[in-house]
Amino acid sequence: MAYFGKRYHPPGTPPGTLTTEPTGTAARGSLQLSHYGKDGAVRRTLTRLAEWQPYLRQDGISWLHLQGAVDADSMRELGDLLQLHSLALEDVLNVGQRAKLEEFDDYLFVIVNLPIASPQGLLIEQISLFLGANFVVSICRGEHDPFEPVRQRLHNGGARMREHQADYLLYTLLDLVVDLCYPVLESFDDRIELLESEVLAHPRRETLQAIHLAKRELQVLRRILWPQREVLHALSRDEFQRVGERTQIYFRDCSDHIVQILEFVETYRDITASLLDVYLSSVSNRLNETMRSLTLLATVFMPLTFIVGLYGMNFDRTSPFNMPELGWRYGYLAIWGVMLVTAVLMIVFFRRRKWM
Amino acid sequence: MAYFGKRYHPPGTPPGTLTTEPTGTAARGSLQLSHYGKDGAVRRTLTRLAEWQPYLRQDGISWLHLQGAVDADSMRELGDLLQLHSLALEDVLNVGQRAKLEEFDDYLFVIVNLPIASPQGLLIEQISLFLGANFVVSICRGEHDPFEPVRQRLHNGGARMREHQADYLLYTLLDLVVDLCYPVLESFDDRIELLESEVLAHPRRETLQAIHLAKRELQVLRRILWPQREVLHALSRDEFQRVGERTQIYFRDCSDHIVQILEFVETYRDITASLLDVYLSSVSNRLNETMRSLTLLATVFMPLTFIVGLYGMNFDRTSPFNMPELGWRYGYLAIWGVMLVTAVLMIVFFRRRKWM
Amino acid sequence: MAYFGKRYHPPGTPPGTLTTEPTGTAARGSLQLSHYGKDGAVRRTLTRLAEWQPYLRQDGISWLHLQGAVDADSMRELGDLLQLHSLALEDVLNVGQRAKLEEFDDYLFVIVNLPIASPQGLLIEQISLFLGANFVVSICRGEHDPFEPVRQRLHNGGARMREHQADYLLYTLLDLVVDLCYPVLESFDDRIELLESEVLAHPRRETLQAIHLAKRELQVLRRILWPQREVLHALSRDEFQRVGERTQIYFRDCSDHIVQILEFVETYRDITASLLDVYLSSVSNRLNETMRSLTLLATVFMPLTFIVGLYGMNFDRTSPFNMPELGWRYGYLAIWGVMLVTAVLMIVFFRRRKWM
Amino acid sequence: MAYFGKRYHPPGTPPGTLTTEPTGTAARGSLQLSHYGKDGAVRRTLTRLAEWQPYLRQDGISWLHLQGAVDADSMRELGDLLQLHSLALEDVLNVGQRAKLEEFDDYLFVIVNLPIASPQGLLIEQISLFLGANFVVSICRGEHDPFEPVRQRLHNGGARMREHQADYLLYTLLDLVVDLCYPVLESFDDRIELLESEVLAHPRRETLQAIHLAKRELQVLRRILWPQREVLHALSRDEFQRVGERTQIYFRDCSDHIVQILEFVETYRDITASLLDVYLSSVSNRLNETMRSLTLLATVFMPLTFIVGLYGMNFDRTSPFNMPELGWRYGYLAIWGVMLVTAVLMIVFFRRRKWM
Amino acid sequence: MAYFGKRYHPPGTPPGTLTTEPTGTAARGSLQLSHYGKDGAVRRTLTRLAEWQPYLRQDGISWLHLQGAVDADSMRELGDLLQLHSLALEDVLNVGQRAKLEEFDDYLFVIVNLPIASPQGLLIEQISLFLGANFVVSICRGEHDPFEPVRQRLHNGGARMREHQADYLLYTLLDLVVDLCYPVLESFDDRIELLESEVLAHPRRETLQAIHLAKRELQVLRRILWPQREVLHALSRDEFQRVGERTQIYFRDCSDHIVQILEFVETYRDITASLLDVYLSSVSNRLNETMRSLTLLATVFMPLTFIVGLYGMNFDRTSPFNMPELGWRYGYLAIWGVMLVTAVLMIVFFRRRKWM
Repeated sequence: MAYFGKRYHPPGTPPGTLTTEPTGTAARGSLQLSHYGKDGAVRRTLTRLAEWQPYLRQDGISWLHLQGAVDADSMRELGDLLQLHSLALEDVLNVGQRAKLEEFDDYLFVIVNLPIASPQGLLIEQISLFLGANFVVSICRGEHDPFEPVRQRLHNGGARMREHQADYLLYTLLDLVVDLCYPVLESFDDRIELLESEVLAHPRRETLQAIHLAKRELQVLRRILWPQREVLHALSRDEFQRVGERTQIYFRDCSDHIVQILEFVETYRDITASLLDVYLSSVSNRLNETMRSLTLLATVFMPLTFIVGLYGMNFDRTSPFNMPELGWRYGYLAIWGVMLVTAVLMIVFFRRRKWM
Repeated sequence: MAYFGKRYHPPGTPPGTLTTEPTGTAARGSLQLSHYGKDGAVRRTLTRLAEWQPYLRQDGISWLHLQGAVDADSMRELGDLLQLHSLALEDVLNVGQRAKLEEFDDYLFVIVNLPIASPQGLLIEQISLFLGANFVVSICRGEHDPFEPVRQRLHNGGARMREHQADYLLYTLLDLVVDLCYPVLESFDDRIELLESEVLAHPRRETLQAIHLAKRELQVLRRILWPQREVLHALSRDEFQRVGERTQIYFRDCSDHIVQILEFVETYRDITASLLDVYLSSVSNRLNETMRSLTLLATVFMPLTFIVGLYGMNFDRTSPFNMPELGWRYGYLAIWGVMLVTAVLMIVFFRRRKWM
Repeated sequence: MAYFGKRYHPPGTPPGTLTTEPTGTAARGSLQLSHYGKDGAVRRTLTRLAEWQPYLRQDGISWLHLQGAVDADSMRELGDLLQLHSLALEDVLNVGQRAKLEEFDDYLFVIVNLPIASPQGLLIEQISLFLGANFVVSICRGEHDPFEPVRQRLHNGGARMREHQADYLLYTLLDLVVDLCYPVLESFDDRIELLESEVLAHPRRETLQAIHLAKRELQVLRRILWPQREVLHALSRDEFQRVGERTQIYFRDCSDHIVQILEFVETYRDITASLLDVYLSSVSNRLNETMRSLTLLATVFMPLTFIVGLYGMNFDRTSPFNMPELGWRYGYLAIWGVMLVTAVLMIVFFRRRKWM
Repeated sequence: MAYFGKRYHPPGTPPGTLTTEPTGTAARGSLQLSHYGKDGAVRRTLTRLAEWQPYLRQDGISWLHLQGAVDADSMRELGDLLQLHSLALEDVLNVGQRAKLEEFDDYLFVIVNLPIASPQGLLIEQISLFLGANFVVSICRGEHDPFEPVRQRLHNGGARMREHQADYLLYTLLDLVVDLCYPVLESFDDRIELLESEVLAHPRRETLQAIHLAKRELQVLRRILWPQREVLHALSRDEFQRVGERTQIYFRDCSDHIVQILEFVETYRDITASLLDVYLSSVSNRLNETMRSLTLLATVFMPLTFIVGLYGMNFDRTSPFNMPELGWRYGYLAIWGVMLVTAVLMIVFFRRRKWM
Repeated sequence: MAYFGKRYHPPGTPPGTLTTEPTGTAARGSLQLSHYGKDGAVRRTLTRLAEWQPYLRQDGISWLHLQGAVDADSMRELGDLLQLHSLALEDVLNVGQRAKLEEFDDYLFVIVNLPIASPQGLLIEQISLFLGANFVVSICRGEHDPFEPVRQRLHNGGARMREHQADYLLYTLLDLVVDLCYPVLESFDDRIELLESEVLAHPRRETLQAIHLAKRELQVLRRILWPQREVLHALSRDEFQRVGERTQIYFRDCSDHIVQILEFVETYRDITASLLDVYLSSVSNRLNETMRSLTLLATVFMPLTFIVGLYGMNFDRTSPFNMPELGWRYGYLAIWGVMLVTAVLMIVFFRRRKWM
């Protein structure tokens, strides 16, 4: 995972320049249209943007979702169709944007980032949304369409959602993006609990790496979610032409959720930092205790080695004062006794001092 | 204890969906009704929500408390009876919410979280409250009813509390929730004092774990109490249709208390962090001092072992220059003398240098 | 010192309940009355609150100071006499409150906390003040009356202070409370300077404990002074019915002082934290250097012990290649020479490498 | 790299004093003029400032860019020509200014700082800009002209940029300065990723130095970019006489970018701090593990040395109890067996305890 | 350097009490008068304050500077002459005040603190200023008059400064105080760069002390400059009767400078904190590497000592299995060979593992 996932034009490019992402594959993105009103809903997969035009002129709300690779030409076509500002279109193409909310004359432009907990680590998908009087355009460059559940609810479910205006659809989409953070949080919860037990029970070198990685990912998550919080706060409190008062109650709920999610992220960051401290201390203590045990062993043998060295001296035995013990009948056994007593006394002493 | 105690719907569920908690047991929750006015108070245990309706139409203030398991159906019934917003009802069921205060047309919706210091660690109970013109609904999902003291005061005590409006009842309930934080703080105070003496006197591996746990729980406590503070601040300063000016003085007092509680929590967090540092230093010093003592012992034996090795050399004794000491009458004793003097001198030297 | 010095009622007690502190001794508190105007001042020690009443009806300003144990009954009497809110009276009795400023219809209620540097550590005394149109009530539960200097100035000194209104008396009392923080700061200054020299010169285990204690007390001091600052800021900037514009200039000065005191506290906290780091490093270096010296000594003896072991080998001397040195006339002396040279070379090498 | 790259007059110099930088070389700076309108654009390299005057009186927008060494005289001339405040001119000459935005009666004065990632480390170039009704003056003291791409676009490209007012030119220049931060961020990204793999795989002493350097440079970058953010925020939100509403949408985009850049800088700072911790732990563990291995080896030899010492004792062999093993036919081999078994048992024991 | 450089009255002293500093020497302070207008300037050294009175009644601006020891009597005289508030006079005498800005009816009262980098460490001089309609009073208690350059400019230089009002003189003095921070910053820059190279090349015990001292002084500097920033911000943005709009542009420039100075101080604090970490790691690594080298040496001798011990055993040589090596003709040489090979193999092994 690289931290810097922002796509940008070479400095000096005119603002509002649209370029197709070079790393794209041949696979074209798909266009999902949902057109609905109180009376019913129509679902179609478009092949060209131009097919949308007749729907826009009809009554009802039109939701167009672009999933996957989007090239500069279709963005330009979309911009012409809906009269979108070129800076907004540029932001859609140059993924890695900060979450933002920009009000233009006729429409609202929203960018949010969707975190996904994948086995390869934390992935971030940029989702761009345009809210007009009777349309919503949502653009996601990833592989999987996150909004399929909403579409199903729209077409299969009861009519409740179809009774609201386009702003409610925007809310539903943003609410889903916020709700999708909960599984990510849960995955962090599991990881941190695992790391905690590992750190306290048997810390390994890999644990350090895992803690560092969790810290990094929480850092990224926090960086992405903070501006998201501002966007939702603005939607729930400020006045926008395109967002009704009734829908603001819903945005308020959504805004509360993202605040709570951020509080969880902060909690996890704090605990991860604390875990690093505990890990370092744990590892250091473990090593030190090993060293102490080894040193204790060495220390017990120290006087014993001295004693056996003592009786290896070659003093002239003719003097009765020169190591008479060597001549005793039970001298060897006595020495063993002395050595055993020495060793036992040392061990007792060490235990008393709680060194062992 | 898991950090992430939030219940949430699978992402994509329509907002305002009410579902019964699956882990619930057969035990149904209880419905405690207190209906009171200046003239007196009636207390009843209801079996069905419908029994409440006649009371609501009478004069006086009606307080309904739902304790324990609450299913989606009764929430729906409650919502229909009092015309409550489905988002609020969803928040009641999906426990683990952030404390919040939401003003709707006819009523005020409040969520607070009650921390409980249990032997299993810190537990958090969500308490949801609705304040209408003449009613208060309180919902708590835990086992024990925290509001029993208020109910007893209402029915047994003097008439003072019965002279106020419904907003004063809300205050009384919130004040109790705030006051219940003091025993939790005291339990932390005891724990930290214990940890402090342990750390300074004889730190053990369990101490580290206990410090880490205290840090975690204080983190959780802080996360829960911060939004609570905002709720009480809003109740004491902002204007709400359902909260009278006279009651705001009381809420102000309550708001001061939660601010003080949060200051205590911050103090405890700081001290716990400092304790971790002191623990690490204490443990490391203890180990290092052991190592030093052992190394000192080994160092004293070093020259002694050298000396006894010296006289174990097999030089040809025919030369008068080759270790004549070995032939001396008191050679052995002399060597002992040399060794004792060496050892004593070393010990004196070590003591002088404050190494021992 | 316990962190949690707050007295509180068992949760569930009605708000505004007044109870006498159970740990009180028989010694009753004293009532000091000062009644003054431009023309002169009267000083009396009252035995009952009722004796105050006639003074209140006269012209001039009445200052009543309650020092020491205060029971619930006299607070109730005071409340009836001056029409005080029961919540305020409760706060007076339940010491350990956060500093607060509450404006009621007829009077201002102020709580501040007085830090005292005693040999037993930092003590905190709560001081409660009521400011009415023509009276000031001050209540302090400690042993020593902090306001005696003000009383003496009022009665002995020139008339300047007697020319002001009651709000100026409140200022004088609060200013004294703020000024009494300076000796506390000075005591911290001395302690920290002492700790600093200790840490850099010869750190001991007690130093660690002293640093931790200083940190704790600074933490408590900061927790107490922050709300005090808000109180004085409000008195110097906001409009209160009972505080004149002319007196606000004085409160502004007082507010500046508490801001400076808090800046000192922050500075001390930072330095204490830094001291802990320096202590840990100092201790660890000291231990490590001892270890290095010991290990150096051991290392010098290592090859010497090897050499003497070498000549203790029992090779068959009949072969001319088997340790001929043992047969040399000056063999023993030669070996000593070799050993001395080895030791000297090692010491030179160690010194070159700056290990010694 | 020195932190303190600010040029300042000796304290006491009158404000608005203009002095030529003494370290300048003979090479004079160049004057690039671009004069454009809807109909076309003229590009000229001026030799003297006076040549600009006729263009200023014509229709169209005049952009003068001063690159390289600028002396006090030409600044004075410029000030006289455009009626610029002497404080502004002083700020242009005394490079190392904080980014600032100052509105004067007729013109807007902007300072921004351009970070450049060079092999010698992070370089900072101050860029000063004046925006008048029909002119823009930009001054950069570095070697390379950063605005060449804009000039080329102005002259070669389509007419779009030429249709806007002078404020759009200011935006284009500031946008380029902001966009030039992205390559700097990318270079940090690469460095940090490299450091990360180094720290986890094989930390060296140079790694520490590199981490410290990265920390330092990020600190400098942050210090420079924070005020830049305020400048762009003001340009996008506040009202200025010289900045049109249509252009503010563009400044808003630019402001979003710098906020994101600052978030990246904060993220990098956090990760660098964490890296330092991981490095310290990694190095310490590595050393400790070496020590453990060595100590293990020493400990295995401890009892073996004791055993061989044992049989070096000179006990009188006439007693049957004095080391009869020495007389056994296979005594030597048996001792080898005992020693091998001892060593193997110790190794097994160490492995069991996970010490090896 | 003591942290607590504040002079204060014993608590309980009436506010506005003026007392002469007891530690003053006999040397009286000097009174420097500059009286100027568009037409010219007069400079005189006064002996008594009363000599100033006639100048105050004339046209033109009167600047009186009091340098050095100031006694309570002359402050009282000054207060009577200009009708100054006694609290302001007290602040002038009780040096060690926080920077402040107080607007009174007729005059503005400003306190700022001047940091001076002396060989004895960081010194702080309090400078007090009064700005009236046609006068400025400046008071500095130190030895050296910091405002001499301004006075020289006023008298020798061109007429520009003399064309402004008294507020411009206040600006000139404050600007000088701010500009005098730059040399202090530069001295920190030098110190930190020196410390950095020392820490990375050869850290010593004195380095630790120097880092701690730098940290302390930066802490003090920051504490002093923060309120200074507020004062200058207020002067440049708020409306004061005595400060003209034209002069506010100048104060704005001055305010920008102090913000930048504070950013530098923050940068230095961060780097110093980081330096402490790097120092600790550097020292600890250095010690550990010495230990490793010594332990390696010891470990190489371990098996050699074992081998020589082995052949010191006294096995009965009559058995052909008991150490036949001892009887070999080249046994001794062979053992040397074995020992050399062992040592070389160990060294190779250690090098492979990068332990050496």
